[in-house]
Amino acid sequence: MKKASVHRKEHFNAAHRLHNPLLTDEENRELYGKCNNPNFHGHNYELVVKVTGPIDEKTGYVADTKILSNIIKEHVTDRFDHKNLNLDVEEFKTLNPTTENVAVVIYETLRGKLPAELDLKIYLYETERNFVEYPA
Amino acid sequence: MKKASVHRKEHFNAAHRLHNPLLTDEENRELYGKCNNPNFHGHNYELVVKVTGPIDEKTGYVADTKILSNIIKEHVTDRFDHKNLNLDVEEFKTLNPTTENVAVVIYETLRGKLPAELDLKIYLYETERNFVEYPA
Amino acid sequence: MKKASVHRKEHFNAAHRLHNPLLTDEENRELYGKCNNPNFHGHNYELVVKVTGPIDEKTGYVADTKILSNIIKEHVTDRFDHKNLNLDVEEFKTLNPTTENVAVVIYETLRGKLPAELDLKIYLYETERNFVEYPA
Amino acid sequence: MKKASVHRKEHFNAAHRLHNPLLTDEENRELYGKCNNPNFHGHNYELVVKVTGPIDEKTGYVADTKILSNIIKEHVTDRFDHKNLNLDVEEFKTLNPTTENVAVVIYETLRGKLPAELDLKIYLYETERNFVEYPA
Amino acid sequence: MKKASVHRKEHFNAAHRLHNPLLTDEENRELYGKCNNPNFHGHNYELVVKVTGPIDEKTGYVADTKILSNIIKEHVTDRFDHKNLNLDVEEFKTLNPTTENVAVVIYETLRGKLPAELDLKIYLYETERNFVEYPA
Amino acid sequence: MKKASVHRKEHFNAAHRLHNPLLTDEENRELYGKCNNPNFHGHNYELVVKVTGPIDEKTGYVADTKILSNIIKEHVTDRFDHKNLNLDVEEFKTLNPTTENVAVVIYETLRGKLPAELDLKIYLYETERNFVEYPA
Repeated sequence: MKKASVHRKEHFNAAHRLHNPLLTDEENRELYGKCNNPNFHGHNYELVVKVTGPIDEKTGYVADTKILSNIIKEHVTDRFDHKNLNLDVEEFKTLNPTTENVAVVIYETLRGKLPAELDLKIYLYETERNFVEYPA
Repeated sequence: MKKASVHRKEHFNAAHRLHNPLLTDEENRELYGKCNNPNFHGHNYELVVKVTGPIDEKTGYVADTKILSNIIKEHVTDRFDHKNLNLDVEEFKTLNPTTENVAVVIYETLRGKLPAELDLKIYLYETERNFVEYPA
Repeated sequence: MKKASVHRKEHFNAAHRLHNPLLTDEENRELYGKCNNPNFHGHNYELVVKVTGPIDEKTGYVADTKILSNIIKEHVTDRFDHKNLNLDVEEFKTLNPTTENVAVVIYETLRGKLPAELDLKIYLYETERNFVEYPA
Repeated sequence: MKKASVHRKEHFNAAHRLHNPLLTDEENRELYGKCNNPNFHGHNYELVVKVTGPIDEKTGYVADTKILSNIIKEHVTDRFDHKNLNLDVEEFKTLNPTTENVAVVIYETLRGKLPAELDLKIYLYETERNFVEYPA
Repeated sequence: MKKASVHRKEHFNAAHRLHNPLLTDEENRELYGKCNNPNFHGHNYELVVKVTGPIDEKTGYVADTKILSNIIKEHVTDRFDHKNLNLDVEEFKTLNPTTENVAVVIYETLRGKLPAELDLKIYLYETERNFVEYPA
Repeated sequence: MKKASVHRKEHFNAAHRLHNPLLTDEENRELYGKCNNPNFHGHNYELVVKVTGPIDEKTGYVADTKILSNIIKEHVTDRFDHKNLNLDVEEFKTLNPTTENVAVVIYETLRGKLPAELDLKIYLYETERNFVEYPA
């Protein structure tokens, strides 16, 4: 049985600000600098979803990327795209949307929607120069 | 005298929404769809500034890209980066920040800061798939 | 009245072969080399459609890229994507699908679907290293 | 002894169709959709070959990328480039050329041509948005 | 008669320094900063050669990109690649290799090797963020 | 406790030559070919630094990419950028600057500047087609 990983790349454009409500405004400004702008800023996020498992003999697939793309769109990008992560997305009303935390939320959202025998990893690019892999 | 064009690429990350205050909310929603989200969304904007003029015999330059980069940073990207275009940038308090209009504002801002003998053109990428050239 | 150009990038994946039916097989092999393979080869084509016109004062748009994208999809990429250009696309049953000729067909297809006051230009990338602009 | 991985990126342009001869035409159409087009479609494949091993003290190399490139060209890209994978490449006459299966064939082809002490991994991009890693 | 432009992209990796021998060392340091380092620095140059002319009815080509690529390799990239522009390339022994001047030299080299009826333009990327178009 | 990896991408432009002083000139030429040019050649190096560790509950960060970027600039890119690696950078006066060895030097330089609980990995792109990961 041969194991491979299949990757599907999607994107979404969103506003956010970094802010920890448990800290004072002064502490937030010091910690996050311009990323703490109360009026928000935004990004073109690039999302790569990697699933690992056996290559099915009948289909020649680990996973059908069309189905994978539809799952990502329904549960992640349709909910995040052209949104304000802090204000419009339930999970970030109480969770600071750092790239790390957004990747964790995407992982936990998709984990329950994909077959349990497929390993799952998330790569999230906030910019071309800053990106996160979760889980490590 | 040889003429060439020199291009300098910079970037900024900003939030915005498309909204024409002269229209009703319903008309704005119909016209701009998800881009009209009242809570904003955002982009990693890529900006290419093109200047055209004679190659100086002494320097071998049409323009020194380090100086050009500093002018762009001072007058454009430092004012737009990690900002909400609609709320934080003076020019867009009364002007709808479509890619076209943002390109016009960048052009008009830089035109006065660059030598008059250099022609100027702006390329602004809102995403990899949507971009504007101004003037045409 | 301010004029700008708006670009929309789309893609399609297609098979093709270069072959001029007015030439002998030997002449075709000599002229097109491995691109003449009778069993076809293929590409991920990247298509950039550029429209130039006045920025509308009400919308802030030269053209709405969502509408532009839908027109390109309906008339070009849905007809070319995952197809064999020579066998499946009417226009290439008698026209050799060089990058130049594919760009011409896309131009002529879209020209009639877009407002006459918008200038139109096509950029077609057969690979990252070979691409065509039409009209020149 | 220091271990590193060296990557070499190559490309090939090929036609293919997804089709499992053990299934009916109807089952193939349902499973593979437009990728099952009997007239084929095609891609610009990007191939990254990763070899891992000790850095040689004399050469400063894990592997000489010029030699690695020549091996990939001789055994893979010269055989796949500007070809129809299903019709022209021996291995896919009986094997469905999904990205997963193409990556497996490339791995098995190169495994015997490279020193046994070098670990080998294949990354194959069918498009920018769909890619495979083998072995996982 | 339809006119189009065909582009071919090539690359070369070279060392250089910016230095005008008619100026003092102090003036050169002030003008070129770290680009004046007497021990040289270097770049992965990306070169796009654009030729414009009628689409030939027989071939469907403005120009055969394989022939164009061979001309560029013979006359430009084979002479510049893995070289020190200032020390190894005849033209820059007396000409300061700014991106502008390198583009001019490439233009003048290729102009005589290409059919006179094809218009020629050079795009030279010193980095992703600094690039030149010649002639303007 | 959730673990993630954060990546920060930086770049530097440098000249180098491949040369092992323990070998004869003839042996060096045979081993390194055009990369052994005594007058040097150069590259736009792209550097990705990956750090892996727990996501801090207070900050939502594995590491602050602004701080990470500053550390990389101070200790690596400011020392390598617009330099001749062989002549200007202490570590390569006795070490052959192959991509593998440059990655090792960057790793060893940064290892002591980053918190010990963060795992560290270096990806160094000499060109788009040749890149190294260290440690493997």
